[in-house]
Amino acid sequence: MPAPPELIKFIDDNAESFIKRLGEAVAIPSVSGDAKHRQDVFTMAQWLNAQLNSYGVETQLTDLGKHVMDGEELQLPPAILGKIGNDPSKKTVLIYGHFDVQPANLSDGWSSEPFTLTINRENGQLVGRGSTDDKGPILGWLNVLQYHAENQKELPVNIKFCFEGMEESGSEGLDELVEKEAQPGGWFDGVDCVCISDNYWLNTRTPVLTYGLRGISYFKINITGPGWDLHSGVFGRTIHEPMTDLVILMSKLVDPQGHILIPGVEEMVPPAFGEERAIYEKLDYAIGDIEAAAGASIALSSDKVEVLMGRMRSPSLSLHGIEGAFYGAGAKTVIPAKVAGKFSIRLVPPQTPENIAPLVNEYLEAEFAKLGTKNKMVVEEIHGGRPWLADLNHWNFEAAKAATRAVYQQEPDMTREGGSIPVTLTFAEALGANVVLLPMGRGDDGAHSTNEKLDRSNFIEGSKLLGTYLYELAAIQGKK
Amino acid sequence: MPAPPELIKFIDDNAESFIKRLGEAVAIPSVSGDAKHRQDVFTMAQWLNAQLNSYGVETQLTDLGKHVMDGEELQLPPAILGKIGNDPSKKTVLIYGHFDVQPANLSDGWSSEPFTLTINRENGQLVGRGSTDDKGPILGWLNVLQYHAENQKELPVNIKFCFEGMEESGSEGLDELVEKEAQPGGWFDGVDCVCISDNYWLNTRTPVLTYGLRGISYFKINITGPGWDLHSGVFGRTIHEPMTDLVILMSKLVDPQGHILIPGVEEMVPPAFGEERAIYEKLDYAIGDIEAAAGASIALSSDKVEVLMGRMRSPSLSLHGIEGAFYGAGAKTVIPAKVAGKFSIRLVPPQTPENIAPLVNEYLEAEFAKLGTKNKMVVEEIHGGRPWLADLNHWNFEAAKAATRAVYQQEPDMTREGGSIPVTLTFAEALGANVVLLPMGRGDDGAHSTNEKLDRSNFIEGSKLLGTYLYELAAIQGKK
Repeated sequence: MPAPPELIKFIDDNAESFIKRLGEAVAIPSVSGDAKHRQDVFTMAQWLNAQLNSYGVETQLTDLGKHVMDGEELQLPPAILGKIGNDPSKKTVLIYGHFDVQPANLSDGWSSEPFTLTINRENGQLVGRGSTDDKGPILGWLNVLQYHAENQKELPVNIKFCFEGMEESGSEGLDELVEKEAQPGGWFDGVDCVCISDNYWLNTRTPVLTYGLRGISYFKINITGPGWDLHSGVFGRTIHEPMTDLVILMSKLVDPQGHILIPGVEEMVPPAFGEERAIYEKLDYAIGDIEAAAGASIALSSDKVEVLMGRMRSPSLSLHGIEGAFYGAGAKTVIPAKVAGKFSIRLVPPQTPENIAPLVNEYLEAEFAKLGTKNKMVVEEIHGGRPWLADLNHWNFEAAKAATRAVYQQEPDMTREGGSIPVTLTFAEALGANVVLLPMGRGDDGAHSTNEKLDRSNFIEGSKLLGTYLYELAAIQGKK
Repeated sequence: MPAPPELIKFIDDNAESFIKRLGEAVAIPSVSGDAKHRQDVFTMAQWLNAQLNSYGVETQLTDLGKHVMDGEELQLPPAILGKIGNDPSKKTVLIYGHFDVQPANLSDGWSSEPFTLTINRENGQLVGRGSTDDKGPILGWLNVLQYHAENQKELPVNIKFCFEGMEESGSEGLDELVEKEAQPGGWFDGVDCVCISDNYWLNTRTPVLTYGLRGISYFKINITGPGWDLHSGVFGRTIHEPMTDLVILMSKLVDPQGHILIPGVEEMVPPAFGEERAIYEKLDYAIGDIEAAAGASIALSSDKVEVLMGRMRSPSLSLHGIEGAFYGAGAKTVIPAKVAGKFSIRLVPPQTPENIAPLVNEYLEAEFAKLGTKNKMVVEEIHGGRPWLADLNHWNFEAAKAATRAVYQQEPDMTREGGSIPVTLTFAEALGANVVLLPMGRGDDGAHSTNEKLDRSNFIEGSKLLGTYLYELAAIQGKK
């Protein structure tokens, strides 16, 4: 059951008014990570809530309590829970999105005011903070709702909504809310599947469905020695220097080719066989794409399958930096007294923060013992999140694929992402439901960068995609 | 020829007025490294110049030109050149000191106002910025001059002075001045030996003469890869990460026991045989002293000779930090695009920045090639200074030893210092003269720290020491 032609026509006919509405949303600087903008996040919640109500969505603004940011106690923006339709014969889909955005200032290097949606008529780009992350996708759903409301058409499925205002700042309070509302009688009771539109195509050409995300374990190796910073002239070669110990330990974590050297970490992941390699072979992606995104010819391999598997189905270990050492410009002859090396491991199933931490600790303790130093080491795990992998043969994915074919006349690239969207796993586990990531924007949208944009065609065709997905969901028989 | 008893008595009798004068000098916050205090450095120069003139010293304030600090063009404080006595039958000694100081603020943790000399009557400490580094020693010379001026006594030697106001900020312009004035007809023409009082005893008990200083070569390893910082979720295990390469290279420079791993660097230094080890055995120094100074039990050895040789007659390599990586608190999942590792090597003869740099470059190039990375490396030498080693059997040292015995009834510890005082080597080379470092203060004076102090007894006995040194110099026959 493809979407009714009237829906497609409605979206095309109303494209300019949809873009105008996106401009209204972008104009509210709902930066969750900046206390000065906290009131704007509330304004954005009210704006979105009013839009939803106007199309017949019943909503509830949920108080998530307070939190402390930059030493200031602040009220958290509310989560918007919504529902429309209550037909037990229809499937119920839960839609997630977030209405907060990353910080942005013209002085960061934007070509136009970040909170004024700037329409480039030549290349069709809609430039502004939040255009693609994640206001564009949320407004895609509004566009679909508007068609049904204004034309008195019934939706093909029941929809529950979960929109939050703290995604860019750790989704505070959301996990608890999802777990509570997943209980019998809760807002999300009866949800059959979940759709999240908050990631991107691999490239600028081919639509994507995403079925996996890596998890993360973030570690800090603390080495302490002297009671205070020392002068390298006076103390050089008289005492054990913490930096020497730390740098040796950090050098034993990963090799220049990206192989993780902590015993047991790589071994946990089953090797990829021919069939699985074929998935990556099929993706519309070239080494040139990653090198363009990285800004240099530094890919680990000239084999695209290797590089894609490195990002999508392999763990990775990155050294982020050192706290407590000299980091400024110039030359300072200091022996730092306390240094802390930061690194993180991106996890893939069956790795979890829980089964990785003991391997890291045991290895670092053993390597530290080999140093023969009198300094002290303490390893801390700062935070962690489990990886997520969905069944990509589930009917939820079938519907998303069918919608992609219908709108784009293309097979979507089936991808796993290297990063983490922790709420995905929370939905999957709390609801016991399949989650599909159905992105609207392109790989070059620059979600957290300057000049964030959404292409006009991605906004308009993407709205059709989301609408069509609902009809394709409804069309799948016997899976309710 | 020990000092006349009248000189010793004069110093004891005038101790309180000398301390009062030290208070006047400390009260002028002549911080050379802070543009806000630049005028105070000029005021201090005028104060010192007036003192010298009042005791019959002919002076010249030498304009050293301008420099740029913190983006501001500033006039450099003048160097004060002085001379008193012109008897061709007497030896001529050049005395160096500096009248600028390190920054200091009460809020740094001082127990009293840093620019108010605070006299602790219980333990005899004179607390204030510059008390020991280097206003106390300069005023020691003034105390000796005052005796001769007020009592119409002729000095036993001719004296030339060189006092600068930029020592704590790189001694800008001084090398050129020394080299110029060392020429025939220059201010320093005819100097027979040099005395610098700008370092410290090893401990709190035993006077010291210093005959060596380590040099330094400061390096920066630049690794560049991506065009901009990348997200570790998206790019982890797809590209060569600069931090991985840098940390491996830094781990190959020095081991936890302080051995330098760059081939050729250690080998350059001849091993110490029994006779030389005896020098270090004799020093009044215990492992406990270094561990107290470092604030932890982390000495590289329990053998004091090994530890002292590590500081005084061995090269050392310290890793100072990394520029460009994540250095803050918390967890940031960044792959830094450009990182620069900073390290320095303290040099001992026959090492020089010139013969060390090729070894460092060659080794790093070879190790970098082994990494098989596509990132780029550039090694920079930021600055360097050669080591200095004096003939400790020279009559200049004999005079300093005899003066120490006369004033302290102790044999001085003969030391080499781990740090660098670059002007020492400039004097030695430009003048072709022996230089003795004859410290006034103790090892716990905290020259660059909070609560810098000079013990009253070190100031008063130290003034006697400087005066006696002049008479002992004069007493040595046939060395003119």
